Amino acid sequence: MSDKRIAGPEIERLIQLLAKVPGLGPRSARRAALAMIKKREQLLEPLAAAMSEAAAKVVVCSNCGNVDTADPCSICTDPRREDATIIVVEDVADLWALERASEMSVRYHVLGGTLSPLDGIGPDDLTIRALVDRVSAGAVRELILAVNATVEGQATAHYIMGQLDGTEIRITRLAHGVPVGGELDYLDEGTLSAALRARTGF
Amino acid sequence: MSDKRIAGPEIERLIQLLAKVPGLGPRSARRAALAMIKKREQLLEPLAAAMSEAAAKVVVCSNCGNVDTADPCSICTDPRREDATIIVVEDVADLWALERASEMSVRYHVLGGTLSPLDGIGPDDLTIRALVDRVSAGAVRELILAVNATVEGQATAHYIMGQLDGTEIRITRLAHGVPVGGELDYLDEGTLSAALRARTGF
Ligand SMILES: [Zn+2]
Ligand SMILES: [Zn+2]
Repeated sequence: MSDKRIAGPEIERLIQLLAKVPGLGPRSARRAALAMIKKREQLLEPLAAAMSEAAAKVVVCSNCGNVDTADPCSICTDPRREDATIIVVEDVADLWALERASEMSVRYHVLGGTLSPLDGIGPDDLTIRALVDRVSAGAVRELILAVNATVEGQATAHYIMGQLDGTEIRITRLAHGVPVGGELDYLDEGTLSAALRARTGF
Repeated sequence: MSDKRIAGPEIERLIQLLAKVPGLGPRSARRAALAMIKKREQLLEPLAAAMSEAAAKVVVCSNCGNVDTADPCSICTDPRREDATIIVVEDVADLWALERASEMSVRYHVLGGTLSPLDGIGPDDLTIRALVDRVSAGAVRELILAVNATVEGQATAHYIMGQLDGTEIRITRLAHGVPVGGELDYLDEGTLSAALRARTGF
């Protein structure tokens, strides 16, 4: 492929940035850029505005670690959700995946990663302390540790269980059915939903 | 899939708009939105700015029909390209594809579609008159009609040839190698490049 310039620098820059978006490679970035340019009023301008607005408003929820445009986030402030259950996830993508897959109307806690001594990631780099505080507040009856089925995910789950030793809280995990070594975010919703229904004690 | 709201309206709107981008479905739109939100400074803000700038500056070249941020476009004003050859394409996407595939440094003419009586698209809905004017100006020696290998594309090519009847200009088409019924924009660059080198007379 030649590196000839096929359009002005503003369009080239748009293509370069789009190529960094997960799911779009260099070729599909060009196609996407052209489609946007052709649909300036229906797509390009609204997208630019939506991105600006999201960039200006997105915050990390100080209660649960979710990302949203309000703090506390729309899940934490939703009065229809039950406070008795918290699903603990590594990443916001996992929260989104579980919300889509599940009929449960509960709360979440986003850890922000997993314990990883080799990468220098310890308990204080995650939101584990905030999780323990939420549990200590008293309303929580069950903690579903929906971490990835990886070594780091399981080590993180065990660390959290250690921090909650002596509390009366029920701690569960997702049913086997999640492929070993797999990432939650890539699973189909049926598998996720079934794993959630058949969750087991540790 | 449930239609539960998983985030504030600004993020939902961003996801909805991203899902309209060719190459991104609803699921990859969510993944893309989340990746952008997490990389606010490196991705979300620069993309928003690049889209705003493109939306404000993009124009259709009044000479050749290309889209760019200048009129005449950067291809029409490039002094290193030879004026003797014009490649005629249906769409800007075809121009981009040929530019990537070819070593030729020539000019282009974007028709903006094909003749399609059933859809009410006649010669005046395309840039055929402007093309004839460009040819009449005298510098052009060869017109490569790189229209799609579809019925409408071939009909459009024949109409253009009729309009140029009696001129001395050489009119060629892409070599067979372009799949019958295929769209230029989806071809690999090797095929496109070979088809361009082996172009034939009508
Ligand atoms: Zn929250
Ligand atoms: Zn031009």
